[in-house]
Formats: sequence, C-alpha cells, structure tokens
Amino acid sequence: MTSLHRQLAVGASHLLLQRKRNPPVGARPGTLALPADSPPPVIRLMRYDTDHLEERTVEDVDELSDILRKGEGVSWIDVQGFGDRATIERIREIFDLHPLAIADAVNTPQRPKSEVYDHFNLYITRMVRLGEHREICAEQVSLFLGKSYVLSLQEQYGDVFDPVRKRIRQSEGMICRHGPDYLVYSLIDAVLDGYYPVIEMLGDRLHELEEEILERPTPGGMRRIHAIRRELLGLRRAIMPQREAVNTLIREESDLVGPLVREYLRDCYDHAVQASDAVETFRDLAANLMDLYISSMSQRTNEVMKVLTVMASIFIPLTFIVGIYGMNFDYMPELHVWWAYPVLLLIMLVIALGMIVFFRMKGWIGRSR
Amino acid sequence: MTSLHRQLAVGASHLLLQRKRNPPVGARPGTLALPADSPPPVIRLMRYDTDHLEERTVEDVDELSDILRKGEGVSWIDVQGFGDRATIERIREIFDLHPLAIADAVNTPQRPKSEVYDHFNLYITRMVRLGEHREICAEQVSLFLGKSYVLSLQEQYGDVFDPVRKRIRQSEGMICRHGPDYLVYSLIDAVLDGYYPVIEMLGDRLHELEEEILERPTPGGMRRIHAIRRELLGLRRAIMPQREAVNTLIREESDLVGPLVREYLRDCYDHAVQASDAVETFRDLAANLMDLYISSMSQRTNEVMKVLTVMASIFIPLTFIVGIYGMNFDYMPELHVWWAYPVLLLIMLVIALGMIVFFRMKGWIGRSR
Amino acid sequence: MTSLHRQLAVGASHLLLQRKRNPPVGARPGTLALPADSPPPVIRLMRYDTDHLEERTVEDVDELSDILRKGEGVSWIDVQGFGDRATIERIREIFDLHPLAIADAVNTPQRPKSEVYDHFNLYITRMVRLGEHREICAEQVSLFLGKSYVLSLQEQYGDVFDPVRKRIRQSEGMICRHGPDYLVYSLIDAVLDGYYPVIEMLGDRLHELEEEILERPTPGGMRRIHAIRRELLGLRRAIMPQREAVNTLIREESDLVGPLVREYLRDCYDHAVQASDAVETFRDLAANLMDLYISSMSQRTNEVMKVLTVMASIFIPLTFIVGIYGMNFDYMPELHVWWAYPVLLLIMLVIALGMIVFFRMKGWIGRSR
Amino acid sequence: MTSLHRQLAVGASHLLLQRKRNPPVGARPGTLALPADSPPPVIRLMRYDTDHLEERTVEDVDELSDILRKGEGVSWIDVQGFGDRATIERIREIFDLHPLAIADAVNTPQRPKSEVYDHFNLYITRMVRLGEHREICAEQVSLFLGKSYVLSLQEQYGDVFDPVRKRIRQSEGMICRHGPDYLVYSLIDAVLDGYYPVIEMLGDRLHELEEEILERPTPGGMRRIHAIRRELLGLRRAIMPQREAVNTLIREESDLVGPLVREYLRDCYDHAVQASDAVETFRDLAANLMDLYISSMSQRTNEVMKVLTVMASIFIPLTFIVGIYGMNFDYMPELHVWWAYPVLLLIMLVIALGMIVFFRMKGWIGRSR
Amino acid sequence: MTSLHRQLAVGASHLLLQRKRNPPVGARPGTLALPADSPPPVIRLMRYDTDHLEERTVEDVDELSDILRKGEGVSWIDVQGFGDRATIERIREIFDLHPLAIADAVNTPQRPKSEVYDHFNLYITRMVRLGEHREICAEQVSLFLGKSYVLSLQEQYGDVFDPVRKRIRQSEGMICRHGPDYLVYSLIDAVLDGYYPVIEMLGDRLHELEEEILERPTPGGMRRIHAIRRELLGLRRAIMPQREAVNTLIREESDLVGPLVREYLRDCYDHAVQASDAVETFRDLAANLMDLYISSMSQRTNEVMKVLTVMASIFIPLTFIVGIYGMNFDYMPELHVWWAYPVLLLIMLVIALGMIVFFRMKGWIGRSR
Repeated sequence: MTSLHRQLAVGASHLLLQRKRNPPVGARPGTLALPADSPPPVIRLMRYDTDHLEERTVEDVDELSDILRKGEGVSWIDVQGFGDRATIERIREIFDLHPLAIADAVNTPQRPKSEVYDHFNLYITRMVRLGEHREICAEQVSLFLGKSYVLSLQEQYGDVFDPVRKRIRQSEGMICRHGPDYLVYSLIDAVLDGYYPVIEMLGDRLHELEEEILERPTPGGMRRIHAIRRELLGLRRAIMPQREAVNTLIREESDLVGPLVREYLRDCYDHAVQASDAVETFRDLAANLMDLYISSMSQRTNEVMKVLTVMASIFIPLTFIVGIYGMNFDYMPELHVWWAYPVLLLIMLVIALGMIVFFRMKGWIGRSR
Repeated sequence: MTSLHRQLAVGASHLLLQRKRNPPVGARPGTLALPADSPPPVIRLMRYDTDHLEERTVEDVDELSDILRKGEGVSWIDVQGFGDRATIERIREIFDLHPLAIADAVNTPQRPKSEVYDHFNLYITRMVRLGEHREICAEQVSLFLGKSYVLSLQEQYGDVFDPVRKRIRQSEGMICRHGPDYLVYSLIDAVLDGYYPVIEMLGDRLHELEEEILERPTPGGMRRIHAIRRELLGLRRAIMPQREAVNTLIREESDLVGPLVREYLRDCYDHAVQASDAVETFRDLAANLMDLYISSMSQRTNEVMKVLTVMASIFIPLTFIVGIYGMNFDYMPELHVWWAYPVLLLIMLVIALGMIVFFRMKGWIGRSR
Repeated sequence: MTSLHRQLAVGASHLLLQRKRNPPVGARPGTLALPADSPPPVIRLMRYDTDHLEERTVEDVDELSDILRKGEGVSWIDVQGFGDRATIERIREIFDLHPLAIADAVNTPQRPKSEVYDHFNLYITRMVRLGEHREICAEQVSLFLGKSYVLSLQEQYGDVFDPVRKRIRQSEGMICRHGPDYLVYSLIDAVLDGYYPVIEMLGDRLHELEEEILERPTPGGMRRIHAIRRELLGLRRAIMPQREAVNTLIREESDLVGPLVREYLRDCYDHAVQASDAVETFRDLAANLMDLYISSMSQRTNEVMKVLTVMASIFIPLTFIVGIYGMNFDYMPELHVWWAYPVLLLIMLVIALGMIVFFRMKGWIGRSR
Repeated sequence: MTSLHRQLAVGASHLLLQRKRNPPVGARPGTLALPADSPPPVIRLMRYDTDHLEERTVEDVDELSDILRKGEGVSWIDVQGFGDRATIERIREIFDLHPLAIADAVNTPQRPKSEVYDHFNLYITRMVRLGEHREICAEQVSLFLGKSYVLSLQEQYGDVFDPVRKRIRQSEGMICRHGPDYLVYSLIDAVLDGYYPVIEMLGDRLHELEEEILERPTPGGMRRIHAIRRELLGLRRAIMPQREAVNTLIREESDLVGPLVREYLRDCYDHAVQASDAVETFRDLAANLMDLYISSMSQRTNEVMKVLTVMASIFIPLTFIVGIYGMNFDYMPELHVWWAYPVLLLIMLVIALGMIVFFRMKGWIGRSR
Repeated sequence: MTSLHRQLAVGASHLLLQRKRNPPVGARPGTLALPADSPPPVIRLMRYDTDHLEERTVEDVDELSDILRKGEGVSWIDVQGFGDRATIERIREIFDLHPLAIADAVNTPQRPKSEVYDHFNLYITRMVRLGEHREICAEQVSLFLGKSYVLSLQEQYGDVFDPVRKRIRQSEGMICRHGPDYLVYSLIDAVLDGYYPVIEMLGDRLHELEEEILERPTPGGMRRIHAIRRELLGLRRAIMPQREAVNTLIREESDLVGPLVREYLRDCYDHAVQASDAVETFRDLAANLMDLYISSMSQRTNEVMKVLTVMASIFIPLTFIVGIYGMNFDYMPELHVWWAYPVLLLIMLVIALGMIVFFRMKGWIGRSR
C-alpha cells in the first residue's frame, strides 16, 4: 500500500494540492516568491536561422544582454530552475519584463493564460509528463515571446522539448524558416502533445480496474479508482485553462504572432479541446466505475448475508428441537419409545430439506451469478 | 461472462479508450502517424454527371493526378485503409493537401470538425455502425471537398455509404444533378443516419434491462448497465462535436458549399441534435436504472435480513428455555412434576406465536411485495 | 404489477424509447418512411371568415387543389393518419411542399422545431394528452402555415384541438377575425396547454408517493418513482425543444406571421418555459424522493439488524450458561447445592436486564421513531 | 408526525405542487380561470402626492373610473381576492387591460415576468411570507403600472406591503415625492425583502438538523431534510425567474419607468441574486446533509453489526464446547476426571479473552468514536 | 467533539448561515440596519503623497470634512466597526454618499459587487482570514473610491491590510506614486491574496483526511469531510461573485480608475479565477472523499459480516450435532459404542475444516486487503 500511497502523494504534490508559492498576503504586487525547492538556474541558448545554429549553455547571465542586442535569427533562451534570485532579477532587467509578468512566471503555480504586454507576449502553460516510475510530473513553463527571441522559464530541470531541439538542430521542417512565433507554437504544441501519454496511462489504468472490478472487487480497487479520480481532477484543472489560453493567443491583437502561426495554433486548440474531452469522459467513466464498485460491494454483502441466513435458518430450529429432547423432565414419554429417535432424525431431515427447497426457490442457493 | 467481456472490450477499443495514434511528443507538426492495424489502401473512383457514370478501382495512385486534371463531372475518390505510407504521401501531393489537414485525417482519432483551407474544405467525422455480432464499430472518415472532387479517407474497410453509391449508380434523386458539395452532404447524412440503429440498439437493451431489474435484479444486470453507460459515454463523445462541425460547415464562408446544400445541411444538423438528445436521455435513463438497481439490491438485502431475524428471534429464546431444563442441578423441582413438560411446550408455542404476530405487525412476514 | 408494467411500456413507447421511423441508413433525403401503425388518412376541412363557416370531411384528396385555388377566408386542412402513401404524396404535390419538409412531418418522431420555407412555414410540435386509462399519449403534429391555409398533419386520430374547433364554429373570440397565423397560434397554444394536465397528474402521483414513502416504504414505491422519472425524462425531451421552436417562430423573418400573433406567441413561450420549469422541478423532486426511499430502506435494514442483535445478544450468552450446567462432568459441585438453581436463574435475569438497559441506552430499544 | 405532514402539505400546496388554474385546454386565449378558493375582492385606494393623502376602501368598483380620470397624484389601487368575476371584468374594462395581461394576473400561478404593453407595464411576482404557524405562504401579486396609477392584484388577503403603506401615510422617505414607478419599485423591493425571513428560517432549520444528525441521526431527521429540500425547490422555482423579471424591467424600453427608479431597481436585482444564491447554497448544504445522514446510518448499521458479531463470535463457539460435554456417550473419559471441569472453564475463558483481544485489535470494541 | 462542533459553528456564523441584517421587510430603501455585534467605530487616516505621510487616528468624525476639503495627496480613511449610528450617518453626509450605497456597505452581508455612482465608485468585497485558532473569519469590506480619497468600511476590527499600510509607510513600490485607484487595487489584491492561506488550510485538511480514510475510516472522518464541504460552500459563495465584481471594475466606464490600474486589476481577476478554480476542485475532491468514505464503510460492514458468517456457519451446525447426542432417548445405540465419541469429534473436525476451505475459496478468510 505504501507505493500506492506514495503515488497518491506524488499526484497530490504535483497536480492537485500544489501550494501556491505566493508572496505574503498583501505584499507589493510583483514581489518574487521563488520556489524553495527549485534548483539553481541553467541557461541554454539556441540561436538559429535557416543556415546557422549556435547552441550553448550561457554561464554568465549578462551575456544575454549582448545576445539580445545582436538580434540576428531567432534566439531561444531556455532557463531551467529559479534557484537564484539575482539571476532572475537580472533576466528581468535585461529583457525589460513587466514586474507582474515575471512574478506570474516564477510565483508558481499560475493558471495557464496568455497576455499581451508592450514589447512581448507572455504565455503561461502547465507541462505534464510521466516520470521515471510512471508517476505524473507537472511543472509550470512560461514563454516570453519577443521580436527576435523566445525566453522560456521552467521551474525544474527536464522537459518535453527535446524533439523541438532536435528539429532545430537538424534544420528539419519549417521551424528554421520561421520566426520566434513559430518556435512558441512548437513549444506549446509539444506541451499539449505531452498530455496524451498521461491521459492514456490513466485510461489504461481505468481499463484494468474495470476488468478487475467486474472480476472481483477488492478494497484496493476502490482506492485505485479514487487515486485516478484525483489525478483526473488535477489534469482537468491543468488542461481546462489551456483551451482558453490558446484561444486568447489566436485572437489577441499582437504583431508578434503572424497569421500562419495563428492557423497552426488552431490545431493546438483542437488538441487542447480533445485532451479536455478525454479527461471529462474519463471522469465520467471513473464515476461510473465507483457506482459499479459500490453496487458490487453491496451485491457481495448480500451474498454473505444469504449464506449466513441459510445456515442459521436451517440449523437454529433443528438445534432447538434436539434441545427439547435433551431436557431432564421425569415424564417425557416419547423418550422411551424405541422408534422415537430415528423418527426425529427423519423429521429433522425433512425440515432441513424443506428449508433448502425454500431457499432454492427464493434463488438464494445455487443460482448466484 | 466472457462474451460480455469481449463486448465491453470491443466497445472500449472502438469508442472510449481508443488510443490516439499521435506522432511522438513534440514531433514536427504534420507528421503522419499511420495506424498500425490499418489495411493497405484500396482506392475506388466514382465519376458521374447527369448522364455518365464511371466506377472502378484505381490500382495506381498516380492515375488520380489525371482524373483530377480532367475535372469533368463529380469525382468521388474513396480511399479505405491507410496501410501504406507512400500511397498516402502521394495522395497528399496530388491533391496538394495542407500537411496539418492530411495529418488530422490519418492520425486517428481526431475530434470531428470542419475546416476551410485554401482550395478545399476538410470535414472530419466519426462513423459508427453495428458489426456482425451487433457490436459497435467506430471509425474516422475524413472528407476533402474540392472544386470537382470529394476525397474520402477511411481507416478501415467497410462503411455506411452503400446506399449513396446505389443512388449514384441509379442516377436516383438529386445527387447526379448537383456538385460535389451535395455528395459531401449525402455522405455526412449517411454517417449521421448510421447513429440511429446504434442508439436504438442501446435503447432496446436498456428496455430489456429495465424489465429484468424490475422482475429480479441479478449481478449481471449491474454489469450490463455499466456496459451500456460506457457505450453511451463513447457515443456521446463521438456525436457531440458533430453538432458543432455541421454547424460550422453551414456557417463557414466558403465558395465550395452552395446555398442549397447549406439548406440541406440544416436537416443534418437537426439529426445530429436529435441523436445527441437521445444519447443524453439514455444516459439519464441508465443512471436512473443504476439507482433502481442499487435500491433493489438494498431492498433484497433487507429481505434476507428479515428472514434471518425472524428465524433467529423465534428460535434462539426457545433454545435457551430448553437449555434450562437440560441442566443437571439436583434440585430442580419442576422436572419432577408430570404436567411440566406439556405446559412448557405450550408456553414455548405461545412465545413463538407471539413473535410471529409481532413480526407480522411489523410487516416483516407475509406482506413482502 | 402487470398494470404498472403496461403503464411503463406505454410511457416507453410514446415518450422515451420511441423508435425513429427513419428511412434506411443513407436513403435519398426526403424519402418518406410512413409509420406502419398509422391509420388511413382522414382529411377534415374548416374554411371560415368572419361570416361564413364551411366544415366537412374531404373524401377525395384532389379536392384540396380547388380549395387551395379559391383562397377565400382561412382554410384549415386537418389530416389525421398517414396510412396511405399516395394520399400523402398527393398532398405534397398540391401544396408544393419541400421534400425535406414533408419528410420531417411524416418520418416521426422529429425534434420540435420551426422552419421558414419559400411559400410556407413549418412548425413541428409534440402533442401529449392523457388517454382513456390516464396513460400518457404522445404524437407528432406538424403545422404548415401558408398564405390562406393551415395544413396540420397528425400521426394518429384524436387530438387536443376540439376547443379550437368549437371556437371557430361559434365564431367566438378573435379567431375568426384573424388570418391563418392566428389559427396556428391557437393550435400551438392548445398543444402547450395540453402539457399541464399531464404534468399535474405526475405531480399528484409524486405527492401520493411521497406520503406513502414517509409512511411506509415498499418495493413498489421504488418502481413507481422510477416510472415517474421515466415519464418526466420523456416529457422533458418533448417540451424542451418547444421553447426554442416557439422562440424561433417569434423571431424568424417571415411575412406569414403578423406582429399581433407574434405578441400572442410570447404568451405561448411563457407557457412552454413554465411547463419545462415544472418538469425540471419534478425531476429534482423525484430524485429527492429516490434519496428518501434509499435512506428509508437503509433505515429499515438498520431497524431489522437492531432487533436481531438485541435478541441474539441477550439469549446467546444465556444459552451458553445453561449449556455449562447441562454438561455431564462427574465433579461439578455447584450442581449439588440446593440454592444453585434459583441463584443461577437470578444471575441470568440480571444479565438479561443489564443487556436491555445497555441497549436502551444505545437507543436500540423503545426509542425508534 | 402529523404536524410535519401538515407542514409538508402546506409547502406543497403553496410552492411546489401548486396546480395551475388554467382555463380548459385550448380555451380562448385570455379566458379568466378564477381560483375557486379566492375570497371576494376588497379594493383599497391610496392616493397621494407630496401634500395630500386619501386612503379608503372602494365599495363600488365603478368609482375607479372617476379616480382614474382625475389623475392627480399617484393612485395605488390594491385589489385583494379574485372571488367575483364581474368585478375583475369591470376592472379590466376601466383600466383597458389587454386580455392576455389580465388573464396572466388572475390565472395563477404564472411564472414571474415583466411585460410592456401599450399604455401600461405588467409585473408579475411571487410573494412569500411566514404564516401564523411559521409555515410558508406563497401568493401571486401582479402589478400594473400606468401613467398615474399602480394597480396591484393579490390572490389572497394579507401581504408584506404594510411598511410601504406606513411610509406613504407618514410621507416618509422619497416615496411621496416620486411617481407610480417608485411605488412599483417599493412594492417589488418589499416582495424581495420578504424572501429573507423565509430563507433564514430554512437556514436555521438546516443548522438545527445538522447538529442533530451529527449528534444522533434519527429517521425523523431524514424526513426533515426532505421537507427542507422540498421547500428549497419551491423557493428556487419562485425566486429564479424574478431575477430575469427585474432585469427585464430595468432594461425594457418604457416611458413609465424613470432613470432614477431604474437605478433603484438595480438594487432589487442584487437582492434577487443574493436570495437565489442563498437558496442554491442551502440546496447544496441540504444535499450534503443527506450524504451525511446516509453515511451516518451506514455507520450505525456497521456498529450494530459489530456488536452482534462480537457477541455471536464469542459465545457460539463456547456454546458448542459445552454442548460437547453435554453429550451422553458412555465412553467419554474426560467426564470422569476431577480437574476436567475447572480446566474446561479456564480454556473457555482463554478463548473468550482471545476473541476480545482479537476484536479490540480490529477496532471493533472500545474504540468507537 | 465539542471543538469540532465549535469550529462548525464558527464556519456557519461566518460564511454560510450568516444572517443578513436586513432592515425590516419593506422598510424605506437605504435604511441602515447596523449589525448589533459590531464594535464602536475607529477611524484611521493615512494621507500620503510621494514625499509626505500623515498617519493618525481621527477622534472626531467632523475632522473628515476638513481632510476631504484639503484634498492634497491620497487620503485613506479606514473605518472599523459600525457600532455607532451617528458616526456612520455623519460619514454619509460628509462624503455625500448615496443612501443605497451606504446601506449596502453597512447592512452586511452583501454580495460582492462593483458599482459606479456619480462622484465615487463603490466596491464591496468579502475578506476572509484565519483567526487565532485557525478558524475562518469572514467580514465585509466596502471600499469607496473618490477623486482624492479611499474610504474603507469594515465591520470588525482586524484585517489583512497591514502589509499595504507597511508599504505606504515605507514609501515602498509604486503605491505612493499613484492615486487612490492604485490604493483600491492594492486593497482588493490584499483581500484576494487572503483567500489563499484559507484555501490551502482546507486543502491540507483534505489531504490529511484522505490519508486517514485510506488508512482507517472513522465516524469522525465523515464529520470532518462534512465540515470541510461546508466551509468550501461558504468560500465559494464568497469568492464567486468577486470574479464578476473585479471584472465589472475593469470594464466599467469611470474616470476614477486609470488604465494602468485596470491592467493591474487584470492580475486580480486572474487571482480570483484561480482561487475559485481551487475551491471548485476541492469541492470535487471532497465529494470524491465522501464516496471513498461511504464505500470504505460498506467495505467494512462487509468484513464484519464475513467474520460473523464464518463463525456462525462453522459452529452452528456443530452445535446442532452435539445437541443430538445430548438427547435423552432410551434407544440411541451409537451412545454405547466406545469409538462413537472420537469418531464424532473427527467428523466435526472434518466439517469445520471443510467450511474453512470453502470460505477460503470464496475469499472470505485470509485474503482481506
């Protein structure tokens, strides 16, 4: 049970009961409340155009200022880990980010949303993926889209963006022929694609559970339904606002997102809708399974009761009868007749058989299932 | 039970727990993820106008290029099976389909939707029909509507379009006097009509189940309600987006769909609404049946308990009494009186009758039903 | 129970599980699928203006053509029964009805709706009324509104329109001073008024049931709640779309419906909303009753258990005690003391009383209700 | 229980199962179906301006015609009771009311609504108040707002308008400085204020019930939850449409309602929203209480079962053991050993203690609560 | 249990069953119904601009009139406690507040809302915070925003505004460089931030409860779920309207709120949405927990029943058998055979073992969990 427990706890910490690392109540708007468990920031740069690719880790945050100034090609600055306040503050200055925007990015978790600022767009999304032990890991990713750059801020190391990186490296597809808006689209698409394996894993678990409950409901089954419902609740809370966010991104007036990318984002929107449809359907299915489980349990209680009732109803009256002839009254004439004993045994047999026939007719014996 | 199980599994694989055959997370948008179990493509051509009909199987995919160029009459190119990547890619090139459009068509399942592209419209729908063993088969059908052609892509062999083919062959009705938009309407109409037999089959099963539960609730009943709820969940997920999709098709600005066909599509929309109404109503009815089942079960447990309680309450006290006179105390004067035994029997009879009267008054004996 | 059963079946066939008599899947749009159980058509004509009234049964369908041509006053052609294809086809020709319109009218059941065509409006509604045995009868009524006529198509004989006929005959009210649009309004009003007696009958049954369940829940009660929930589900499915349909009729651009009648239709709309409110409220109430029933049952099971537990807990220990002194050991000194027997009886009495006091304190004896 | 019953019935007749006194199905629109139990009409006149106040009972309905003609100040004609058709008809003529409007006013109950007519506005509302025995009384009030008058029609004697009358009499507040629209606002405000004491009474009852169920769930508790849910259902059906009705009144184009009063009506709207919020919250709370009750009951059944199981499990095996040594076999050596009896007693004690320890460990003894 | 009880009561009085201190039904609109338990008013002034800060307690309410007239910088007049009618009336006069506005502010509780008046805006909000014993305290705060002042009215002493005060004192952040609209924003932001600790506390309690129920469901668990559901219901009723209120404030046409502050309010809106999302998710989770609890209980009842059934089924038949050989018939030959006794013991052992094997196979012994 401990592993189930751990898994529940994992689900809890990542999706559902995630504490908002808010600054203290009433703090100045824009105060940064850096997550305590976030590792030190690692900054990776990919700068590319149709012909060139520069990929490296940025050791000194001030280099970003130069990179930004040059402004050739598309620069993807990927920051993983918020563990150092100075770095985050410096990034804010270099990119001239609005205090509320940077606060939303690092005071995780925020509700996924899309916002237009003066010289950049902010898109906050929630990334889920399966961890090593097939547990669900969730993490906030914030994408800042500027004229020539995309700045992505991730709370933890590890993400679902490796295929995008690979496509950039191999100059594959359209990614290198387009601007930073296409890169943002690719990242959002990768995040949304990342929901499917998680949803499918839950679907598979529901399927197994259904078979198990139909076969033989166990207490563990109930717990596992609960665990899945919990995860689905968390997933729903993560995926639902993404529909709106993508939709906002498509419709928002902003020069930074071109018409071609808007068309591609329509596809993202369809994916988000499909994912949330799947989550809703699985929630309904899980509720149905709970019904099935509960009625299975009451069915089984009923079966147990039938066995008890049959046993008790047959033997309690017989025990009473033999009790009668165990009494020590002086004058009990039937005790002294030689055929009394076999006749009594016969009578008791008849009573027992009568009971059995009665219970058979009621369907309590022999017809279960 | 195994047949029920199989049926459940079938429902699962086709409607509910259908895995999305997505390309790997983060893959290039427009990557084709062909379903592994899809048979090799078979291409059928029907080209017709008011006077002529050409119907044949296209062996070489490159022929399509000529067919498309000629552009006389209406060409319906029906591709069943995605089992060969080269063919699919070639079709994409010949018809000059947008990568996202062809990806939506073959990376099944997609949510039903209608989209306008440059020189064609895409309509994705979900076809259901009853298979040989009256199990529900579901499959994605994608319709590409061009100036002079309709290209339909089906994942599996077999469909609900035979009546449409017959009408074309017999030059029956309006179908040959109108353009490809009317053909698309006819196909959508056929798909939506295909929902009714499935819904009615579930309605009939609900009706039988209802009678059975009212008569005698069995564990199998609960499982069958669950199986139907599951199918309804799947149907709902398939039919709901079709309402929107047809509506989009009616309202979308596109030269390819004429005003007359838009009027006919209104009728399709009504059918989609009616089908989803029916599904919703059956879902409510199935939930009510679950309530009925659960309360029937608790009713039956109650009955079992009553029998046990009546038997035990009558005989346990009597057994105690006879136990008293089975004790071996030296000084038990009543043992030696000749009328003690018959009097005791009488007293016990009175107690038993009293109990029976008491339970009758409580309605636990003789008044069930 | 059979009568309940019949009633359920009646409800089923008329409201809920009503099979759509669709033409075969994929059939030509506009194919007529006449209901097999519909009687042969009877055509009744009422032609009236402020001064004259002509009322008769039209024996030959071709007469309608003359009637239509003359065009004086308002003609109400009421067709009951679709049992003859030729007649229906002829009516279609004479009135020049759109194939989809006539198909919607005879391929029952359709979802209630209002549609504007070239030279006529179509209003499809669902009429309910109480039959002879107070069972609910439901039937589709289609109203075609033309310049000078109203054509009503009814699936079965019998309707709720007699008061309208009476008002026409008596030149009562405004009906004879106004055009066919006012007649259509009067018919829709009569249909909606027809819902109230049905809803009230269900309300009365709910009320009786509530009293019965509060008094003494029986298995029959549960079945009757279920039967009512079923009827309400059917009523809801019938009334809900009528709200939209009336609203569409009010707002639709059409010369055939005058501003005065639109004002009167607002009143119809209010009635439809009120009826659907009532149905929703009764659905909630029925769900509450199911809760009440289920908790009553579990309450009763609890009571049964208490009786069993009290009886068993008192007598099983005592039986054990008397069993001890029924043993045949040679050396049981207490058997030979003269006061042992009365003392033992006393001890057992004390134990029994102790038990009773204990159960009283727990509230299991004497305080039920 | 009878008092509960009466109360339920009262709730039923007033709020939930209230029969609509419709004219017969299909009757002429505008037919008056006067409630049979409505008392004879009493007409009260209050005519006021900033300086004068005339207050009296109008004996002869024809006087109203003069009053209307004079048109000085604001006239509030308050009619209570519809028990005389002639009076109602005469009022209709004098005020020249639209037939549908007067029909809506007297054919109670109608759904609350606001409608603009040619020379008057109609506002239909539902008044609730606590009766003498703290039962909920509900009644329809219709307000006709004309240029210089307000005509209020009430089904029964008694209302919540006394404070408004008092304010008029005392020339208090703004009421005497404003027109009839302000009076209508004051009356609507009084009606909406009247909901709060009723809602609070139900809130108090829920609170008591909650404490009772947490303390000791009784069958009566379940009935009382049901009674409250029923009342809430009725209140909801009464209050919900009032939100829309007030909103319509604010937005409707009508010269009869001035901008200042529209501003005040915004406040009414807030009250209606707040009241319906409260009703919804209480409905949720009552549903939660039902859950709590049901789980309390199953908890108690569980407790009962534990007692039974503990008693039976301890004593049934022991009774079996003493039964063994009550057998009359000739050769039972242990019967003749002197220490057999005490040793057996000891063994049985050990068994009993073992059982008790086992049940303690399972938490079935001693740890309840 | 009393502490739980107190806590429930606290929750009740503050959030859910809070009585609206309305003036008597039908009272003059704008009547002040001061809360009886509100302490005497304490007025605190903070007047600041970029350079100066004046902070003091205003002893005489008439001073406010001077303060208002001077109009330099931003004046925040914070009134805590409504316990003196004269003071409140005087404030109304000095600030020239609309009677409905001041009535909404002091006749608590009102639904949170935002309203524009002639020369001021009114924003009513509901503040929650954790009290000393971690109980939830709720209180209405009304903010009047004028040209140069913010007037805040609080029902009780104590609030969540200390950090805002600190920021003003330290001239920290933007607060001192902006007008009263920014102050209003800061206060609303502080109120919304105050919801998070409360929601998190409930989330933590849910988490603990979940673990406890998975470990061992107790009656207390059920009560605690109920208590949390209750609090969540109250929180939801408080937070939901705040979304609308903030949104109204952003969109309302009013010169008093500048564009910069509107942008900041967008952030508040996001917080309100996020908080209400969290409340909804926790409500779902609590409902799931109730399901889990109920099915755990029925699982446990099932276990108890199994123990009883196993014990009874094994020993009742054996007791019957030993009862047979306790009978006193003269002619019972098996009594006199020397091997009868050991053979019988053996037979009984075989029966008992058979039973045990049977129950093992049924999974009633040894396989629980």
